[in-house]
Amino acid sequence: RRAEMAKSTQLIDNEVFRAYATYTAIVLLKMMLMSLVTAYFRFTRKAFVNPEDIASFGKGESAKKFLRTDPDVERARRGHLNDLENIVPFVGIGLLYALSGPELSTALLHFRIFTGARIFHTFAYLIPLPQPGRGLSWAVGYSVTFSMAYKVLKTAWLL
Amino acid sequence: RRAEMAKSTQLIDNEVFRAYATYTAIVLLKMMLMSLVTAYFRFTRKAFVNPEDIASFGKGESAKKFLRTDPDVERARRGHLNDLENIVPFVGIGLLYALSGPELSTALLHFRIFTGARIFHTFAYLIPLPQPGRGLSWAVGYSVTFSMAYKVLKTAWLL
Amino acid sequence: RRAEMAKSTQLIDNEVFRAYATYTAIVLLKMMLMSLVTAYFRFTRKAFVNPEDIASFGKGESAKKFLRTDPDVERARRGHLNDLENIVPFVGIGLLYALSGPELSTALLHFRIFTGARIFHTFAYLIPLPQPGRGLSWAVGYSVTFSMAYKVLKTAWLL
Repeated sequence: RRAEMAKSTQLIDNEVFRAYATYTAIVLLKMMLMSLVTAYFRFTRKAFVNPEDIASFGKGESAKKFLRTDPDVERARRGHLNDLENIVPFVGIGLLYALSGPELSTALLHFRIFTGARIFHTFAYLIPLPQPGRGLSWAVGYSVTFSMAYKVLKTAWLL
Repeated sequence: RRAEMAKSTQLIDNEVFRAYATYTAIVLLKMMLMSLVTAYFRFTRKAFVNPEDIASFGKGESAKKFLRTDPDVERARRGHLNDLENIVPFVGIGLLYALSGPELSTALLHFRIFTGARIFHTFAYLIPLPQPGRGLSWAVGYSVTFSMAYKVLKTAWLL
Repeated sequence: RRAEMAKSTQLIDNEVFRAYATYTAIVLLKMMLMSLVTAYFRFTRKAFVNPEDIASFGKGESAKKFLRTDPDVERARRGHLNDLENIVPFVGIGLLYALSGPELSTALLHFRIFTGARIFHTFAYLIPLPQPGRGLSWAVGYSVTFSMAYKVLKTAWLL
C-alpha cells in the first residue's frame, strides 16, 4: 500500500507534469469563471431563460419580461462555449504531450503561450476588442494544441 | 513488455485513483444520459432540428411543422451543456488532484459531494425544482472543483 | 531528475496507452477541425454573430445584414457540439480504460470503432446523409464508451 501511494505521486513529482498540472488548473479555472460572468450579466441585465429562475421577481406578465435574451449574456455564453471547444483539446492532448517526454523548456513554452492566448481571448471577447484580436488569439491557442498533437502522434503512434 | 504492462496498471491499483476512476465514470455516464433525455423529448414532443431527421414523417409542409423548438427539449439541452461546463473541469482537475497525493478519505469526500450535487442538479433542472435548489447544487459542485484545484496548485505549482 | 523523466515516459511506452494516445489525438483533432468548418461557412455564407466581426464589411445597415444565422453554419455548430458531448466522455473514460489493463487487441477494437464512428458521424451530419446513418454512427460511438465504462467500473470500483 505505501509503495503504491508513493508510486501514484511520482507523476506529480515530474517537472513537465507539474507544469502541465499548473497550467491545466489555471485554464480550467478560467473557463469556470465564465459561468460567473454569465450569471453576473443575467442578474444585472435581468435576462433569464428558466421560468423557475424568475419566480422571485413575482408572477404573471410582469415577471415574464425577464425571460429574454440579452447581448451581454449571449456574448459571455459564446466565450464559454469557445473555451470548451478549445480548452478540452488542450487538456486532453496536453496530458498525452506531458507524458511523451518533451523538454521542460519546450513544454513550458507551449503551456504558457496557450494560457496567455486564452486569457487574452476572453478579454478580447468580453470587452470586445476590434478584430483580428480575438481571431488571432484563438489561432495561437489552436496552433499550440496542434503542435502538441504532432509530438504526441510522433511519439506514440500505434494505430 | 510484461514489466511495462504491470507498471501501466499500477495507477488503477492505487485507492485514490480507483475512487477517481469510479466517480469520473459515473458522472460522465450521467452526462451521456442527457443525450437520451434530449432524444426522448425530441421524439415524444416531435421537435427536431435537422430536415433529414423528419423525412420519415412525410414530405412538404405537413412534415416541416416538426422542425421546431420545444421547451422540454431545450431544457434537457441546457442541462446537458451545464454538465459539460462543470463535469469537464471536474474530470481534468480531479485527475491531477488524484495524482497529487490526497488522503483517501478527503478525496472520497470531494468525489462523493460533487457526484451527489450533479445528480441532484439534473433532477432539479428536469423536474424542475423551485430555485435555489438548482443554483445551490451547481454551487456545491463548483466549490468542490475549486477546492481540488487549490490542492493541485499547492502541490504542483510550476509556472 | 533523470530517473523521474524516465518514469514519466513509461506510460507512453505501454502499447495500450500508445493506442489510446493515438486515437485520442485523432478524435480531438477531428473535433478541432469543426471550428474551421464553422469558420469556412461563416465567411462563405457571410453569416456572423459578433458586431466586431463584420467591421471590415463597412458600417451601418449595409453591414448589419451579415449578423444573421445560416443553416450551414448552424449545422456545423451542431456537429461540433455533438462532438463535445460524445468525445469528452470517450477521452475521460478511455484514459481510465487504458489504465485498467485491457488486452491490446480489445482496446484497439474499442478505439478504432469509436474513431471510425465519429468520423462517419461528421460526414453524415455535414453532407447530410439520410437517417438513420447519423443516428446509428452516434449510437455506435456511444456504445463503445459505455463498454469501456463497464470495464473501468468492474476494475476500479471503489465508491
